[in-house]
Amino acid sequence: MMVLVCYDVSTENKEGRRRLRRVAKHCQNYGQRVQNSVFECLLDPAQWTTLKNNLFKEIDTEKDSLRFYFLGSNWRKRVEHLGTKITPDPEGLLLV
Amino acid sequence: MMVLVCYDVSTENKEGRRRLRRVAKHCQNYGQRVQNSVFECLLDPAQWTTLKNNLFKEIDTEKDSLRFYFLGSNWRKRVEHLGTKITPDPEGLLLV
Repeated sequence: MMVLVCYDVSTENKEGRRRLRRVAKHCQNYGQRVQNSVFECLLDPAQWTTLKNNLFKEIDTEKDSLRFYFLGSNWRKRVEHLGTKITPDPEGLLLV
Repeated sequence: MMVLVCYDVSTENKEGRRRLRRVAKHCQNYGQRVQNSVFECLLDPAQWTTLKNNLFKEIDTEKDSLRFYFLGSNWRKRVEHLGTKITPDPEGLLLV
């Protein structure tokens, strides 16, 4: 399934900047960065559980925001893009 | 329909910071900010056309990125959130 992961991590201090780096790292392990804080992650259920758990452990729920959107199997039809950052399709095609 | 609008606008110069403000303004006119550069916009087809045209006119396609996700009518089931910024549901409920 395709899960869109969007995050805002408060970077007002060193701990926040560390959380931001670690959140991005977890997302990079499982998906394709399409914007600075937006990743498209094509996951099986086990991967989804792992990614979610990793992110939940990382963020400060008082300061940061994590938002997931489940785009389903027909996810390509749900996406439209304009501008920079043409992204490789995680299933092998090229999305523009 | 629910359209998720995500943007990255290059703020390396004054023009970029102006574009960022204007992109955010257009989104605010039509939707609910859920993260710094992510809006959920509940739109009819005419509103969607207007918003899209407004955003297309605003951005610099060489520097900025606009990405839309069409979440459909069952959009509530597609969203999961953790952390700050509890958002009012544009259809009247409260999403957490």
